[in-house]
Amino acid sequence: MSTPLLTLFSHHAQGGLRERLCATLRQAIAGGHLTFGQKVPSTRQLAGDLGLSRVTVEAAYAQLESEGYLQRETGRGTFVAIVMPAQTTHTTPADRPRFSTRGSAVIATGGCQDPPFPHAFAAGSPELRAFPHPLWRRLSASVQRTHGSQLMGYGDPLGYLPLRSAVADYLALSRGMHCRPEQVIILTSSQQALQLLAMMFLDPGDEVWLETPGYPGARNAFLAAGARCRGVPLDDEGAIVQCGAAKLLYLTPSHHYPTGVAMSLPRRLAWLGWAQRHGSWIIEDDYDSEFHYDDRPTPAMQGLDRHGRVITLGTFSKSLFPSLRLAWMVVPPGLAEPLGQARSVMDGHSALMPQAVTAAFLQQGHFASHLRLMRQLYRSRRDLLLAQLRPLSRWLTPITTPGGLQLTVRLKEGEEAALTALAGRNGLTLPRLSPLATDSPAQSGWILGFSALSPGEIAAGCGKLGALFR
Amino acid sequence: MSTPLLTLFSHHAQGGLRERLCATLRQAIAGGHLTFGQKVPSTRQLAGDLGLSRVTVEAAYAQLESEGYLQRETGRGTFVAIVMPAQTTHTTPADRPRFSTRGSAVIATGGCQDPPFPHAFAAGSPELRAFPHPLWRRLSASVQRTHGSQLMGYGDPLGYLPLRSAVADYLALSRGMHCRPEQVIILTSSQQALQLLAMMFLDPGDEVWLETPGYPGARNAFLAAGARCRGVPLDDEGAIVQCGAAKLLYLTPSHHYPTGVAMSLPRRLAWLGWAQRHGSWIIEDDYDSEFHYDDRPTPAMQGLDRHGRVITLGTFSKSLFPSLRLAWMVVPPGLAEPLGQARSVMDGHSALMPQAVTAAFLQQGHFASHLRLMRQLYRSRRDLLLAQLRPLSRWLTPITTPGGLQLTVRLKEGEEAALTALAGRNGLTLPRLSPLATDSPAQSGWILGFSALSPGEIAAGCGKLGALFR
Repeated sequence: MSTPLLTLFSHHAQGGLRERLCATLRQAIAGGHLTFGQKVPSTRQLAGDLGLSRVTVEAAYAQLESEGYLQRETGRGTFVAIVMPAQTTHTTPADRPRFSTRGSAVIATGGCQDPPFPHAFAAGSPELRAFPHPLWRRLSASVQRTHGSQLMGYGDPLGYLPLRSAVADYLALSRGMHCRPEQVIILTSSQQALQLLAMMFLDPGDEVWLETPGYPGARNAFLAAGARCRGVPLDDEGAIVQCGAAKLLYLTPSHHYPTGVAMSLPRRLAWLGWAQRHGSWIIEDDYDSEFHYDDRPTPAMQGLDRHGRVITLGTFSKSLFPSLRLAWMVVPPGLAEPLGQARSVMDGHSALMPQAVTAAFLQQGHFASHLRLMRQLYRSRRDLLLAQLRPLSRWLTPITTPGGLQLTVRLKEGEEAALTALAGRNGLTLPRLSPLATDSPAQSGWILGFSALSPGEIAAGCGKLGALFR
Repeated sequence: MSTPLLTLFSHHAQGGLRERLCATLRQAIAGGHLTFGQKVPSTRQLAGDLGLSRVTVEAAYAQLESEGYLQRETGRGTFVAIVMPAQTTHTTPADRPRFSTRGSAVIATGGCQDPPFPHAFAAGSPELRAFPHPLWRRLSASVQRTHGSQLMGYGDPLGYLPLRSAVADYLALSRGMHCRPEQVIILTSSQQALQLLAMMFLDPGDEVWLETPGYPGARNAFLAAGARCRGVPLDDEGAIVQCGAAKLLYLTPSHHYPTGVAMSLPRRLAWLGWAQRHGSWIIEDDYDSEFHYDDRPTPAMQGLDRHGRVITLGTFSKSLFPSLRLAWMVVPPGLAEPLGQARSVMDGHSALMPQAVTAAFLQQGHFASHLRLMRQLYRSRRDLLLAQLRPLSRWLTPITTPGGLQLTVRLKEGEEAALTALAGRNGLTLPRLSPLATDSPAQSGWILGFSALSPGEIAAGCGKLGALFR
């Protein structure tokens, strides 16, 4: 038996002997070690070489004959029966693949990689060490016991109805929204919600407006759909109402990302009027509305919408945990059914078990208590971060925010790139503010996530920050 | 206090009193029960009417003032401070929304609703009653204990590395594939894999070829991307090689959907040569290759590909359970990174805990034993179904399949619609064969799922089927 054959066989260490032998021979033929017309060893010889029974080798040859790799000729032996296509001399690491226009647009965004964490100041991570793990496990076990295999099959693309109901109740109570469970769609993430809306509403070249600076995940979803994104500047009442029309407007009214500005009521009404006049959609990203520290957050814009122009979305990634992969979207009546159809073409539906556990967590009141505790925890961390940054006020200016899981700090103009690089060399990965600008001058700064950091970690991070300047 | 206010208040039954009152007043203003300039009841009066303390009402008024709904004028009282946009007389159930070109294409597909099940003969459902629930629960608990909150954060858009490794090992051993863990991408479903590939490779108007009859989920994903789909007819060696070029070819070579034909080796090599000549991509859907009853399935085409033109995908929905939401895709080296970026823009990443449990299930050898048991179970059910259908052979002709979870039966031409309707009236939902045709004459028949049906359920279903004809 040839050395390549022996080597190949030893590499196929798992599985039954017959299957290992089949895999070895297939690979030898595919790899050009055995070529068309070549005689393979007799079953007796191969059995001897490999210490196998002849029955095993016979079975493998028979299978490979049925697959078309080998041909047995009575009295002559067994031969390789197929011609493999010519091997290019160097296995080309493939030509740079040609992507579609949309594909190229997606690549150009650079993707929405969420930060690996915990690492100091990664933005938007909840404190998982404070999560009520035993309670969650108990609920999971109880849901499994009660529902068993009912929750293992296929699900509704719109979501598990008890969760849709629980979310509708929560949003009515906490966010002043008007919605029935039928208007709630459960998705894997707010990113998926944005992708779905971009697919359904945006043609290439359509205009989308979004706050500048603003959330890059949303911009990426719109750019991937071929939309032209235009930045809407803000003042201390939120996004400034613009002249003209856009197909779609993306807003974070209860808490602007990343500065935390809340949009005033007159501004909200003006934007609603604008949407009604132009037949535009407003996507209201209700992100981090669960985490307001000094005041209650203003209710969602959706509660003011009388013309069905507002689509509101939020995620459980921050309020529960990121790997849960659950988010929600509330759509005007009449939109749920077509969006559900589209969702079924995108990826079917969300996993049922996590939906059922989350529904129970909400229905039994644990969500409200968990949020209460997290608000206290995060507020104390924000305050600590602000205090620790005070001595650095010559170099950086925190934008005081009423809530959220991150604090935006401004740097002197032009300093962001060099300071971020310096910080990186000192083991501090700092999310930059400047990439959040859409056709407006980039602001120099960082977005410092504090929620997942213990007091000690905040102090250590600020120590490293301070060292950059001194 | 006006009746509408009382009614509204009683509807806001959850939450703290202050929050209930705020929600009531916001809704009264938004709904036009209280209008701009109107005086609202004094705190004393409202507290009396509702049996609340004045402190609560004071707090609610203060909050609504800070939100801009109310204005308090010393000595005069509290007034509604905002003008709501004019209410259209009938709340239009919104104009029929205008969707994008892609959005309209998605709607036109009718979606990929998976069948609610179990119901007799729903296609493609595994037998969840035979799933090793206690073992899965034990593994879940052990993974939670070992990894805890490490698995609750953000994950890699390409998938959890231990699962990618376990899948690579499994595919090398069982499917004759050549892949390193870095080439494996974990997704929520094969539908998501198709959607991702359509987004990345297809421009509107691009030509996609797929078998006819063929899998409608794939066709829907391509149509949603604006592609032109062309059907490729089959014979008993599988899809017949065509002249000309296509951007992308979708195949089910190990087991054609829905007829079960396995593609011959010469045909595979010919298609690979075609793809290499034209720079086309072949999507190999390795669906149901785990469930072959009479013979081993032929290895995946990917193992024969020397030019990096084949992308292979498969799902755990059938081999484990649908609600798990895990599927895999193996891509040529160099494609994983851009596809991962695109996946991050689509929906981030897959849930980590189910990935870790599935990885353990594979690594510890449970997957192989589970599949062995399921193969025996499903084979006996397929044989029973064939036996039960024999007396109906004057009316329907089963296409004997070497594997899979469903049996395709042919009906006499033109009979499908009327018989399916009749069956529906008798409580039997039968998936039709004809919609699976892409520019070829539609075949009359049904796709009878048997895997999720106990012997008694199969007999009962066949009894109902028989009654249709007699």
